[in-house]
Amino acid sequence: MEYETPLFFHVMQYAKRADRDVIDMVSGNPDWEPPQALRDGLHEYADLEPEQFQYPPSEGLLELREEIAARRGVDAEQVVITNGAGEANYLAMARALERDRGNEVILTDPVYPYYPGKTTMLGGTQRFVATDDEGQLDPADVREAASEETAAIVVNSPNNPTGAVYPEETVRELVAVAEEYDAILVSDEVYDHFDLSGEFSSALEFDSDHRIVTNAYSKSMAITGVRVGYAIFPPHLVENAKSRHMLVNVATTRPGQYAVLQALRETGPDYYEANRDLLRERVVTFTDALDAAGAEYTTPKGSFYVMARFDGYPGTLENVERLIDEAGVAGMPGEAFGDSRTAWLRFALVTPRVEEAAERLATYFD
Amino acid sequence: MEYETPLFFHVMQYAKRADRDVIDMVSGNPDWEPPQALRDGLHEYADLEPEQFQYPPSEGLLELREEIAARRGVDAEQVVITNGAGEANYLAMARALERDRGNEVILTDPVYPYYPGKTTMLGGTQRFVATDDEGQLDPADVREAASEETAAIVVNSPNNPTGAVYPEETVRELVAVAEEYDAILVSDEVYDHFDLSGEFSSALEFDSDHRIVTNAYSKSMAITGVRVGYAIFPPHLVENAKSRHMLVNVATTRPGQYAVLQALRETGPDYYEANRDLLRERVVTFTDALDAAGAEYTTPKGSFYVMARFDGYPGTLENVERLIDEAGVAGMPGEAFGDSRTAWLRFALVTPRVEEAAERLATYFD
Repeated sequence: MEYETPLFFHVMQYAKRADRDVIDMVSGNPDWEPPQALRDGLHEYADLEPEQFQYPPSEGLLELREEIAARRGVDAEQVVITNGAGEANYLAMARALERDRGNEVILTDPVYPYYPGKTTMLGGTQRFVATDDEGQLDPADVREAASEETAAIVVNSPNNPTGAVYPEETVRELVAVAEEYDAILVSDEVYDHFDLSGEFSSALEFDSDHRIVTNAYSKSMAITGVRVGYAIFPPHLVENAKSRHMLVNVATTRPGQYAVLQALRETGPDYYEANRDLLRERVVTFTDALDAAGAEYTTPKGSFYVMARFDGYPGTLENVERLIDEAGVAGMPGEAFGDSRTAWLRFALVTPRVEEAAERLATYFD
Repeated sequence: MEYETPLFFHVMQYAKRADRDVIDMVSGNPDWEPPQALRDGLHEYADLEPEQFQYPPSEGLLELREEIAARRGVDAEQVVITNGAGEANYLAMARALERDRGNEVILTDPVYPYYPGKTTMLGGTQRFVATDDEGQLDPADVREAASEETAAIVVNSPNNPTGAVYPEETVRELVAVAEEYDAILVSDEVYDHFDLSGEFSSALEFDSDHRIVTNAYSKSMAITGVRVGYAIFPPHLVENAKSRHMLVNVATTRPGQYAVLQALRETGPDYYEANRDLLRERVVTFTDALDAAGAEYTTPKGSFYVMARFDGYPGTLENVERLIDEAGVAGMPGEAFGDSRTAWLRFALVTPRVEEAAERLATYFD
């Protein structure tokens, strides 16, 4: 696999250019409403004095960092506000590789393709550890893959693309492996608000100098385009990450930070619960229809995605484009996520037309 | 000089914590109004459908890229929308160093400190070429410094911190030197709307496969905190830059792009002219007072900055902090900009209290 340019935008553009109605199940873009307070925050910001349109502190607005620190049980000094989880993961992986303890980044297979892409860009090499059929990662396999060469272990739970949610023992053990090998566990928890199983465990629960937690408001507040995320570093790793953030981006967009802070403060748990309920319904609708179509599939314990396998229709980019043109459903090719899921397609449940999509698939593969 | 963390934020924070009234002449933050259409654009965005809160295309909103392309006389395919000029310069310098034609980045002395900081972060080495007392760069000196090792030549006109504006011959020759040595000229033109001399020349005027032009709306629209900029690449260099942009930031903030597009379309030349007039007045006010104080100084032909030298008061960080505490004026230490201006202080004319600041300096150094 080449990971230089993750395929998401390519497939989305292909679907948009198609000569027919296409149901978009490609992107991880929520199709539901952002919190009202997020919209209100942008309106408020638009009328502020000119001073408020200027550089925020490079590491982020202090009030936002304090709000996050209080919620996550860390010191505000450990928090850097980033241009989404994308930059947060980039900073975390760069920090791990800059420690000069090794050049290898342990990733899962299947994998979210930005991680291997970032690894190459940062001069590291990938080492993949297979997950099981449900996407669960066995920490013993990670320990076996780890060595003096290991700079980082990058994981994502709830997981894209498998929908797996790692239990507490897994996360505890992953932190332990990172400590044993003087590596850094990078725990990308951007789908934490979409744990449908109640089994989610944050790496922040295990205090350690060897783990960095990344997150964003892109999914939880349905604002992937606003670009506000954060990374939480151990105290001794944060200064260097702040330097890189400053040298790459100077600072994260201030209207976005302002609106997110307002939304954090004013949005109750019902907003998040309603979105989880919506997703739960869509999982049932979609998998029922896949059953009817005789397809094999995974039932997500978290995140937005269902992986499905149709007989004789492997998950290549070519087949994804054919499905767009001939069935009017756009998914992601399994091959985009590594070698282990090349037979599979990934469908994101972020459209109100989940049932229709499933019916189109059933008809097409009938 | 260590450039790992440019000093701007440090000095700003020191000034904010001071136990007295301090006039802030540290940052390059305009203190005037953003265009009304920018505020209107944010309001409009805040009420759009949820889909508009999701990822824009990674390289930027097509309408914005087309608007920029039409204004700058390039193809929209060459334009990447970035998180301010900061990311634009980062992408440009990374692209130049990734060509593996050499490891050296030619910079001016004095220099905007983010450039040497980015160079180190990207694994390059700096080679400085001195400018003259007015900040003018002699292309013959650049040619002499250039070699097989030269990956990039990074220049900034109108210049921060000197206020120099490079004439057409200089820019033409810099492009020629980049071509001769198969290097990349990175021309940071973020102050192009603040050419007070009428002599500004964009590197885009000289068609070449060896120059990248970077810019942003941070200064021209007085929105340093919104973080919308762009880079224009030669066609054969753009794909790789788009990959890096995607792998680092995924995309640039969409509310910012939306509002900037609206402001670009609806803001007339009078907005920019009024801001230049304001700056011209401030230059006269400040330099008159410096004359009265017997200080040596530069009169900017562009950008926001006046460099001043006071007898027996070199431009160290320590002296800058003393000036904050004892005179109530915050500037930047000349030593932050390289070896050639260690005797100088830099004052940004982005406060309505320019006259008062000059009087405080005159009294303090009397």
